[in-house]
Amino acid sequence: MSVLLTNIAELVTNDPAHGGSGDTGLLRDAAVVVEQGRVAWTGPASRAPAADAVVDAGGRAVVPGFVDSHSHTVFAGDRAAEFAARMTGEPYTGGGIATTVAATRSASDDTLRARGRALVGEMLAQGTTTVEIKSGYGQDVDTEARTLRIARELTPETTFLGAHTVPAEYADDRAGYVDLVTGPMLAACAPHARWVDVFCEPAAPTAFDEDEARTVLRAGQRAGLLARVHGNQLAAGPGVRLAVEVGAASVDHCTHLTAADVDALAGSWTGPSGSGTVATLLPAVEFSTRSPYPDARRLLRAGVPVALATDCNPGSGYSSSMPFVVALAVREMRMSPTEALWSATAGGALALRRDDVGHLRVGARADLTVLDAPTHLYLAYRPGVPLIHEVWQDGVRVPR
Amino acid sequence: MSVLLTNIAELVTNDPAHGGSGDTGLLRDAAVVVEQGRVAWTGPASRAPAADAVVDAGGRAVVPGFVDSHSHTVFAGDRAAEFAARMTGEPYTGGGIATTVAATRSASDDTLRARGRALVGEMLAQGTTTVEIKSGYGQDVDTEARTLRIARELTPETTFLGAHTVPAEYADDRAGYVDLVTGPMLAACAPHARWVDVFCEPAAPTAFDEDEARTVLRAGQRAGLLARVHGNQLAAGPGVRLAVEVGAASVDHCTHLTAADVDALAGSWTGPSGSGTVATLLPAVEFSTRSPYPDARRLLRAGVPVALATDCNPGSGYSSSMPFVVALAVREMRMSPTEALWSATAGGALALRRDDVGHLRVGARADLTVLDAPTHLYLAYRPGVPLIHEVWQDGVRVPR
Ligand SMILES: [Zn+2]
Ligand SMILES: [Zn+2]
Repeated sequence: MSVLLTNIAELVTNDPAHGGSGDTGLLRDAAVVVEQGRVAWTGPASRAPAADAVVDAGGRAVVPGFVDSHSHTVFAGDRAAEFAARMTGEPYTGGGIATTVAATRSASDDTLRARGRALVGEMLAQGTTTVEIKSGYGQDVDTEARTLRIARELTPETTFLGAHTVPAEYADDRAGYVDLVTGPMLAACAPHARWVDVFCEPAAPTAFDEDEARTVLRAGQRAGLLARVHGNQLAAGPGVRLAVEVGAASVDHCTHLTAADVDALAGSWTGPSGSGTVATLLPAVEFSTRSPYPDARRLLRAGVPVALATDCNPGSGYSSSMPFVVALAVREMRMSPTEALWSATAGGALALRRDDVGHLRVGARADLTVLDAPTHLYLAYRPGVPLIHEVWQDGVRVPR
Repeated sequence: MSVLLTNIAELVTNDPAHGGSGDTGLLRDAAVVVEQGRVAWTGPASRAPAADAVVDAGGRAVVPGFVDSHSHTVFAGDRAAEFAARMTGEPYTGGGIATTVAATRSASDDTLRARGRALVGEMLAQGTTTVEIKSGYGQDVDTEARTLRIARELTPETTFLGAHTVPAEYADDRAGYVDLVTGPMLAACAPHARWVDVFCEPAAPTAFDEDEARTVLRAGQRAGLLARVHGNQLAAGPGVRLAVEVGAASVDHCTHLTAADVDALAGSWTGPSGSGTVATLLPAVEFSTRSPYPDARRLLRAGVPVALATDCNPGSGYSSSMPFVVALAVREMRMSPTEALWSATAGGALALRRDDVGHLRVGARADLTVLDAPTHLYLAYRPGVPLIHEVWQDGVRVPR
């Protein structure tokens, strides 16, 4: 059965064949035909083919479903009090990430599953049709594997992040923790994961330095996982160049970059290896930690593809909202509303090496969001306002 | 018929009798009894009286409905392209506010009513149960009166802002426009308005200087309206002190204040006149214009009551979201999440000189918001996320 979604004031396809600024393939007075979960046709409404059913978009804008390529959404507990203390400059004596690790280890599968489901549902209601989920709050073999097994129920884009931080019990035996991560933990987790990730941040004592991070990533790759990296969040460091070295699909945060980092990222798209490492920016973390924002324009100027994601997690930023991330990218990182939308859709897909999502070319998954707005500009023009009229995933309208 | 809303993890009453930091009267494991549209009882769930019906809040937090004391939500057209140009630093040759004035003048009553209704409905869905609406996009007798007549259908808190800007046709006859505003326009508008307002900003050529603003406010007061002022948005100026001089309930924006301005506001609450002028901050405007934020802490230190509002309007900031404003107040103005919630509820009520809303003391209007969160801290902890589980207005659950 085919469905014609028509009376679309503005359709963002991310299909360069349709033209539009910045490869957005923007059509006005448009229509989409969906068949068997895929986009079968896009074009002017006046030239739309017949279909088995017709849905009227009411003169709204339609954009590809958001691709949130970075989240930590299977965990237990919250850290609202820590957040409030950080914002008001009061001392906070809680345990930071160790709090979440302890709560996650002691939580049942059902508790973890309920939280993950609620957050993925919340994301879907906000237009996110593809989400990546990392482990990293278990930091022991059993909890990491449980986390990924549950995450895999929610998305195929699961990431093994045993090397999130060094847990307290290994504080004096970092090498022992790296052995655990690359040995039994990896063996238990690899069947449930597509990706391997590491928090490479030598400036943070509980994160991993360049050699440790390389060891983790290479071990993951040998186990058949694809690499992605948390890097250069707190200070310039080796994360970005290591990501390029190992051929990671993305290096995430990129808040502090040297000229060599930018060159390395740009070169990954043009050099002979051509692995292509996306810079994924997570401005909701800078919002919630009151930190300086990454320099998106510098990356764009250098020709580095930029993705935007939420990093939804209970510590450094608990927003699940891609529209909010788009608004921040425009306000704080001087991306145009159109660039920010591309990065939140096609950019995220590139960071996950997916070519079936993040755009509405013929053959794409029919994942799309109907906005309560005449144009995608409203995502930044109306910050904080829930603008999601309805969401289609795999060609089916998601019930509200 | 009485309704008991129980299983409330955290109830913010803004009732100092209940204690809690910053007059929030915060109760845990609480309940509310609603009867005839009013709060009949609040206290620990374990001691709740019997009622005709019981509603389970599911362990969520309940806060007073937001009071958005500053909006411009009856108009026509939009200015998304102007916004996008401003954000990207591109030249924009559109007409600014004149665009909205032209569109509003030529719009039918039904068009204006539909927009106003949609925006007030959107606000209600985001937890705003009391909203103020200004005219100011008509700038002629008929359109200003039409705007206020329609606004009055939506809220009792209507504000005559004929003196929003000097329209182009009066550019060479400012005194003539002030005569129009204080003469026939005021006569036509006063029956539909509770408040008179003026954009007092000598730094802006199309806004009003101190003498003009005083003339407008005094004329409005003589016609029985209460005063409020747009002041000190673009530069330090006479707005704040004029507001205190005329006994305005609020001066809004307060982005640029001198020590004398802060003293005048503080003195308005302690001096012999005791009129009490609230400082209403509108950080969503600073977000959407990429301007520096007001210094909320300085006002709070001086003992000035601070309100938070959206200023929802098509030009300088088109957010209708009080949760977004709360998150900005915490991130950008260093208000605590609890202070920000007080300012978005009780502060707004004070700015509207209303003692029946903005709190949940016994006798208050039963306007309350059930959050999809265990604590009000989530409004800032989870920015951009739609956290409104349900809204009660006048004791009735608003259908979704
Ligand atoms: Zn992360
Ligand atoms: Zn205003």
